[in-house]
Amino acid sequence: MTTAHAFIATSLDGFIARPNGDVNWLMERDDPSEDHGYGDFIANIDMIVMGRGTYEKVLEMGPWPYDRPVLVMSTKLSETPVPEALMGKVNFTSAQPVELMLELAAQGVGRVYVDGGKVVQAFLRAGLICDLVITVAPVLLGQGRPLFGAIEADVDLKFVSSRSFPSGLVQSNYRVVG
Amino acid sequence: MTTAHAFIATSLDGFIARPNGDVNWLMERDDPSEDHGYGDFIANIDMIVMGRGTYEKVLEMGPWPYDRPVLVMSTKLSETPVPEALMGKVNFTSAQPVELMLELAAQGVGRVYVDGGKVVQAFLRAGLICDLVITVAPVLLGQGRPLFGAIEADVDLKFVSSRSFPSGLVQSNYRVVG
Repeated sequence: MTTAHAFIATSLDGFIARPNGDVNWLMERDDPSEDHGYGDFIANIDMIVMGRGTYEKVLEMGPWPYDRPVLVMSTKLSETPVPEALMGKVNFTSAQPVELMLELAAQGVGRVYVDGGKVVQAFLRAGLICDLVITVAPVLLGQGRPLFGAIEADVDLKFVSSRSFPSGLVQSNYRVVG
Repeated sequence: MTTAHAFIATSLDGFIARPNGDVNWLMERDDPSEDHGYGDFIANIDMIVMGRGTYEKVLEMGPWPYDRPVLVMSTKLSETPVPEALMGKVNFTSAQPVELMLELAAQGVGRVYVDGGKVVQAFLRAGLICDLVITVAPVLLGQGRPLFGAIEADVDLKFVSSRSFPSGLVQSNYRVVG
């Protein structure tokens, strides 16, 4: 069985990036000496699924940071070859969330990390997110790329745990109910 | 000196009410046996400032709940008399936030509770909010009346404290920097 998990940071007003994709406001509020649990989270992840926006942002930010297979959901990119430097590390897919999860289940992929606002939203709408770890940075941006979006019905959550860090980040862990 | 303080609950996706003003989703997730600090908060408040939306919602919800003077910011209502039953308890004003705070300072009002999404947003835009206590309920609504809105520049916050409750509510306290 394949399960999808979100682990993502937002401003207090719910943005994961500025309108142009900038995440410096988050980097400035991060304290690299703090352990926000990403290592423990990623250790239990078999595959990372992201959208084109996140993929292109990651490419921009420097060396490829992932040691897990990455699947990029993008109709546009799925018609192009994977860049040579990322062969074996990245795949592109035009599949939608439900189809994608069935494919991954057939491949024996267990836990999938879904990253990026649009992908998290699409998976939530499809009822496919198992749990969410949201880390809130102490700033209001006023505009940007939102983590959450429209859904057809309420998504009921079960609070699991919450903790704060000296940096001012507040991290809460929720399980999606039902 | 008059200072403005917010104490408000939202869904995890940042809504204070559904599009029609409904807050049952919050009531259902509240545990009345838990002390979320409202009593301590309101004990130090001299006046409550709210918008017309919040005022009308409060009227609908039953007996007038406030033992503090309430000021309703509404150009429309400011041209009407205060209902007889609320005389001495409520006033209407057409003043905008900066002007309003100057008037309250001249009257010797100390701490003002600003309530409702539009009023909190207007005070934030005017740089008038001193601190925010945000209580997050474990649900995604997908749409509704947002707590936060557009601002001209980042609002930098200092994290003060955070706590969670068995009900699943997570409450964080921030001071506005600068």
